Amino acid sequence: MTRYGHDSVRALRWQDDALHLLDQRLLPSRTDWLIIDDAAGAADAIRSMVVRGAPAIGITAAYGVVLGARRRFAENPSDWRHSMEADLALLAASRPTAVNLFWALKEMRQAIDKVVGASDPVPDLLALAHRISNEDIEGNRRMGDFGAGLIDGPCAVLTHCNAGALATGGYGTALGVIRSAFAKGLIDTVFADETRPWLQGARLTAWELIEDGIPVTLVAEGAASHLMSQGRVKWIIVGADRIAANGDVANKIGTFNLGVIARHHGVKLMVAAPTSTIDLDTVSGQDIPIEERIAEELLTIGGQRIAAAGAGAWNPVFDVTPAELVTAIVTERGVIHEPNAERVAALMQST
Amino acid sequence: MTRYGHDSVRALRWQDDALHLLDQRLLPSRTDWLIIDDAAGAADAIRSMVVRGAPAIGITAAYGVVLGARRRFAENPSDWRHSMEADLALLAASRPTAVNLFWALKEMRQAIDKVVGASDPVPDLLALAHRISNEDIEGNRRMGDFGAGLIDGPCAVLTHCNAGALATGGYGTALGVIRSAFAKGLIDTVFADETRPWLQGARLTAWELIEDGIPVTLVAEGAASHLMSQGRVKWIIVGADRIAANGDVANKIGTFNLGVIARHHGVKLMVAAPTSTIDLDTVSGQDIPIEERIAEELLTIGGQRIAAAGAGAWNPVFDVTPAELVTAIVTERGVIHEPNAERVAALMQST
Repeated sequence: MTRYGHDSVRALRWQDDALHLLDQRLLPSRTDWLIIDDAAGAADAIRSMVVRGAPAIGITAAYGVVLGARRRFAENPSDWRHSMEADLALLAASRPTAVNLFWALKEMRQAIDKVVGASDPVPDLLALAHRISNEDIEGNRRMGDFGAGLIDGPCAVLTHCNAGALATGGYGTALGVIRSAFAKGLIDTVFADETRPWLQGARLTAWELIEDGIPVTLVAEGAASHLMSQGRVKWIIVGADRIAANGDVANKIGTFNLGVIARHHGVKLMVAAPTSTIDLDTVSGQDIPIEERIAEELLTIGGQRIAAAGAGAWNPVFDVTPAELVTAIVTERGVIHEPNAERVAALMQST
Repeated sequence: MTRYGHDSVRALRWQDDALHLLDQRLLPSRTDWLIIDDAAGAADAIRSMVVRGAPAIGITAAYGVVLGARRRFAENPSDWRHSMEADLALLAASRPTAVNLFWALKEMRQAIDKVVGASDPVPDLLALAHRISNEDIEGNRRMGDFGAGLIDGPCAVLTHCNAGALATGGYGTALGVIRSAFAKGLIDTVFADETRPWLQGARLTAWELIEDGIPVTLVAEGAASHLMSQGRVKWIIVGADRIAANGDVANKIGTFNLGVIARHHGVKLMVAAPTSTIDLDTVSGQDIPIEERIAEELLTIGGQRIAAAGAGAWNPVFDVTPAELVTAIVTERGVIHEPNAERVAALMQST
């Protein structure tokens, strides 16, 4: 792995005819793997954030379809296709914002329709799920190199949430760019937002980068403007959960803050995401459903109550950064500079 | 208390010849009062954040001088003045950013020099400490009315950290404005940033507002831009730890973020602070020392490790919001609209 180093972390693997998911709720204190053997288990794992990150959610859903098809086919080889609809609906309802979920389900649905008369539909569906996972990793490596090519380093960068190996099939989107640029000496310091309320930065990004030998410095979200005012950070590098046709970017809550603050300080904003994250059916960010999770995620930390009894909380977990605040969207097919509808369409039409 | 309702919370009181401090490290789960009877105890309480908030730090330091003088005078009635220097130095070194600390110590030093030959210096020094505390509360009530006068409500507001009764002698600066405006029906919803890493919003502001019957909704710092984009929030209302002669405002880390984001969304930023927070000897925000606290405040929550082993953290606890992002500074003497050096000087010359 000399070409793509700093790449040891994986969040999911297919092993012994089941999907194994690293339980990200327990990181970094424990590295437990959950074994998922049906579609409902895959949907539960997505909903409860055992697995998170748009591409990893999509891959998990793809394997969830395989597991569903295996069970449905075993139960009723002659009419399994019909009963698959419940599994597809369950998986589709697991989380609303990341479009990779719906993209992966659409790919799997097309494959189901092709294998519906086969003697055993599972091998072809499993092959597609493997392909989705492997192409994600390969795409992330290309994306990493495209993104690194934009960085005039050595410099410091700031990332938000976890758009890493843990959020994808492997290598990561934003952290793929950081892996690639770090290996090339273009990044000397990685700042990571701790990312309240779920602390993906403190718990996941810090763990993942340290596992792969990349030093990381945590900062509170509140420190962004103070940090950027010091001139050390040249790029904010984040992932995306859904990119609208006009280039608006839905990503972890706090990304919109960073876009506004970066623009104020003359810092650039890079969004690294596979083309499966780009949803041409979503005209603009206004059309992206923003998931709101339970107040308890803010009122407690690690099961410990922190807020005064009686306090309410508003917990939207994504926001939409308008395209005009984005310097570049980096995909596995290439870079969209200063994204708008025309440039997004042009990239999506390319091959 | 019909004139100034919603005002039951106090962080400090003089009782039985000692300073009693509500231990803010334990809120909201416990309301323990610590009894402080010497200057070193007062300095420790400031350093360890038993008490925090610029005006409350100043008042604590004033009582710390009283306690120091009492002990020094008891030990050596003929030469207590000389040994007071150690106490003054200890208190001055307790925290670097809030200027109210140095303001209060200067006031107390002048009083010491007046009473140095008295048969018992303590009564006069205690009277001054009481006066500083009482004038702070009275000033906050005036400030509350001035601030409320700027709000064209009913509307929602967002506050950051805790600039409340807990941060002052009582009533609060930012929360004083909120108390006054809420009582007048000008504010219908108070959003509070949870304020990492010390969670002053979740632990202190939520507790304080609920104690006084004002509903509060917590948000993660990351939600600011998403919240402001929805048009419900008309004002960001914060306190200050030091205001430079040109109107630059040092306050809790994250305030600069809010200033930038508010401007982007056309939301106004109000800084509520007594004139003892305005430091004409500090030309601009660049000259304000920014305290950096230990990394563990970010790496752990409630004693529980959250970040991966090996992760570093950068923990500046204040930042400086440039005057041009501030809509109004509200003091007990009146309002400085769109602050600059000339307008700050004019207010400070008024009586």
